[in-house]
Amino acid sequence: MKLEALREAVCHANLELRDRGLALFTWGNASAIDRERGLIVIKPSGVPYEQLTPELMTVVGLDGTAVQGSLRPSSDTPTHLALYRAFPMIGGVVHTHSTWATVWAQAGFSIPCLGTTHADVFHGPVPCTRYLSREEIRGEYEAETGRVIVEAFDGASPEEMPAALVAGHGPFAWGADAWDAVYNAAVLEQTALMAWATRQLRPDCEEIDAELLHKHYFRKHGPGAYYGNTSSK
Amino acid sequence: MKLEALREAVCHANLELRDRGLALFTWGNASAIDRERGLIVIKPSGVPYEQLTPELMTVVGLDGTAVQGSLRPSSDTPTHLALYRAFPMIGGVVHTHSTWATVWAQAGFSIPCLGTTHADVFHGPVPCTRYLSREEIRGEYEAETGRVIVEAFDGASPEEMPAALVAGHGPFAWGADAWDAVYNAAVLEQTALMAWATRQLRPDCEEIDAELLHKHYFRKHGPGAYYGNTSSK
Amino acid sequence: MKLEALREAVCHANLELRDRGLALFTWGNASAIDRERGLIVIKPSGVPYEQLTPELMTVVGLDGTAVQGSLRPSSDTPTHLALYRAFPMIGGVVHTHSTWATVWAQAGFSIPCLGTTHADVFHGPVPCTRYLSREEIRGEYEAETGRVIVEAFDGASPEEMPAALVAGHGPFAWGADAWDAVYNAAVLEQTALMAWATRQLRPDCEEIDAELLHKHYFRKHGPGAYYGNTSSK
Amino acid sequence: MKLEALREAVCHANLELRDRGLALFTWGNASAIDRERGLIVIKPSGVPYEQLTPELMTVVGLDGTAVQGSLRPSSDTPTHLALYRAFPMIGGVVHTHSTWATVWAQAGFSIPCLGTTHADVFHGPVPCTRYLSREEIRGEYEAETGRVIVEAFDGASPEEMPAALVAGHGPFAWGADAWDAVYNAAVLEQTALMAWATRQLRPDCEEIDAELLHKHYFRKHGPGAYYGNTSSK
Repeated sequence: MKLEALREAVCHANLELRDRGLALFTWGNASAIDRERGLIVIKPSGVPYEQLTPELMTVVGLDGTAVQGSLRPSSDTPTHLALYRAFPMIGGVVHTHSTWATVWAQAGFSIPCLGTTHADVFHGPVPCTRYLSREEIRGEYEAETGRVIVEAFDGASPEEMPAALVAGHGPFAWGADAWDAVYNAAVLEQTALMAWATRQLRPDCEEIDAELLHKHYFRKHGPGAYYGNTSSK
Repeated sequence: MKLEALREAVCHANLELRDRGLALFTWGNASAIDRERGLIVIKPSGVPYEQLTPELMTVVGLDGTAVQGSLRPSSDTPTHLALYRAFPMIGGVVHTHSTWATVWAQAGFSIPCLGTTHADVFHGPVPCTRYLSREEIRGEYEAETGRVIVEAFDGASPEEMPAALVAGHGPFAWGADAWDAVYNAAVLEQTALMAWATRQLRPDCEEIDAELLHKHYFRKHGPGAYYGNTSSK
Repeated sequence: MKLEALREAVCHANLELRDRGLALFTWGNASAIDRERGLIVIKPSGVPYEQLTPELMTVVGLDGTAVQGSLRPSSDTPTHLALYRAFPMIGGVVHTHSTWATVWAQAGFSIPCLGTTHADVFHGPVPCTRYLSREEIRGEYEAETGRVIVEAFDGASPEEMPAALVAGHGPFAWGADAWDAVYNAAVLEQTALMAWATRQLRPDCEEIDAELLHKHYFRKHGPGAYYGNTSSK
Repeated sequence: MKLEALREAVCHANLELRDRGLALFTWGNASAIDRERGLIVIKPSGVPYEQLTPELMTVVGLDGTAVQGSLRPSSDTPTHLALYRAFPMIGGVVHTHSTWATVWAQAGFSIPCLGTTHADVFHGPVPCTRYLSREEIRGEYEAETGRVIVEAFDGASPEEMPAALVAGHGPFAWGADAWDAVYNAAVLEQTALMAWATRQLRPDCEEIDAELLHKHYFRKHGPGAYYGNTSSK
């Protein structure tokens, strides 16, 4: 039963990626985890969004072994698994090639926090990983992709920074559940566009003051939050 | 009865923010004031646009005391109140994080008047506030946000300049009523995009001549106006 | 009867401006002329597109005298009239503040012909007028706007160049009829965007060779044209 | 019968060009070939998309002789034919003036491979042709356009690089069938936008490492591919 609800949620999250303009064709995938049973529900590989149904979602264990479903899981599954293993507090993961977040990833730059829209969701610059080595690319490429993301968080909190860019590739985002991960991916995209355009307008534009960053982030998150009327965002 | 009409108008104005692409998720809010009774109707905090109804609008006094409604008012309410108190001629206020106006706010730049589209609505450059001090951020942050806007208008007319940018944050707009404020916020966004792109094309592009600015502004506003057939814009 | 068909055509052309994203709110107007009777049908001033009907269109003579309709004609009517008087072969005129054409107008630059998309419709760079003098602005502003456009065509053919930019203001386009003028305004907007982005990518990008310009323009226009199967574009 | 299915497929592909925002008005055309019979089905010239039906598609031989249909085939037909003759493995061809691919073509630049989105479909930079000579423009212009594309592929594989830009003009794309060509044209457009914006953000951004390029391209193509669950993309 719980898995069935997860299939529904993951299917819905994948469709949201398309509906919000974050994924063309099949270029995006969302997953969620049932922490108790250690099962991940994820989009099948290469299936067009218009054919997705909850039943088509694939189920794998945290070690990558297929549990349910006749379709092959997303080829990015090992990256999702690496994130679930390293970040025990997250419940959903999203990968897209959304335009503006990908632009920053292609440039190999972290996204600086240039305003409060960014600070409302990301507690600092969104990190960009290093480039993978040739050995990593030749090896377990998708798992290594997860590992360089984790490496980029050395010491930092994946809860306060629910996204990262993979250099030369594109963004990953995560959250409490699949929808939360979609939300963070959508904010990342909007934030990436505005940071890009701001730097075009003012190349020397610096990050906002730490005080303003903290104010906005903690206005919405943690025990002192005073934003909102509902538990959803 | 009058308050009921105001609830309808404010609810409608908030939905327009979403429908015109000025607000993603819950990132925007519109309010209006009943000057006779000193009551402000404003969007509740963090409620998704698709759930908004006139009944859910919250009502507060000019001093911020809750008057009606079980939901918490928008967390930006103190900014709206500061504007209503300082600018007695305005009837509606809108706050958004619309893309291009926010880009100028993030750069910390006023939007220069580079053409007649701008001059038709804004009688000069749209001012950008100074950055708030750390003390102001730590204190009554939202009320201070209103105060730096008012400070930026020292001597200037909020009627002839129905918008401002808060540095590092985003735009506020206002007008005769809630719909007028939405209209001004929408013009601001289009004007901000065109000014951005013009400066990319011609970095040394200067503001239009004062004569042309006056001509266009007063063609549409004031006793000499000769544009239009209806009282609405 | 002929006037009735013209009212329909002009109403439709105005709605197309909105539907093709060329005009926000009431910021655009289309007109057409009955050359035999010397009557121009034009959008009324300041009426929202959603309220436009053929019956609301206003009719004026070539000298600007009102002929039919209780509404005030578009405040830009004198500009339309100046174009109809100076360019006897045109049947329709359109004015918009479409984003990218306006950006070039704000920069005060003509739009260079950087590719065949441009050359298919415009036989050379789209001219930008000089700025109006203070006297011209203070005087018959809208008629003077028409005059500086005509001035910019000194010797050139308004048939082979069915558009111009007014410096600091925005584009005007024209054509055989109202729909043709809308078509040219839409092509101008797309061409303006691509020229802008091309110059951002390659600031020293030069215009295409005259041979290629002629080839594409005359592939679609004049006695040697071999494009298309219908009389419409 | 086979030709009837091809007419359906080609008509659908042409409509997709419009629906995906790749072609304004009549500015795009798709074709497909029946290799056994040497027949090409292509859009008629200048017919608006909303009037297209499978029956209106024109049929020509590989040498350009009209076979079926009372309408004139697209004026770009000789370019399509040159590609079908030179690249025997392709089954569909698409030409558009899509915004961002055309921007690179206007600049006369190949599109560098700056990320994995590009590498998933194009095995290296997308080539831009040289400019046509005046003689070529004056002569069989459309056929010469095909020839400079073929010339740009000297030694390279049109299967691994299913698109090219014609300098000063715009993109052509191809694939196993008409839909595949549309898919490649759509990916090209998205890739062109992201490469443009990346270079604006980081002018010195270099192409991704050859190892990453190969990894992504061959993850989706050839005998070692492990992406997807269906034969369609």
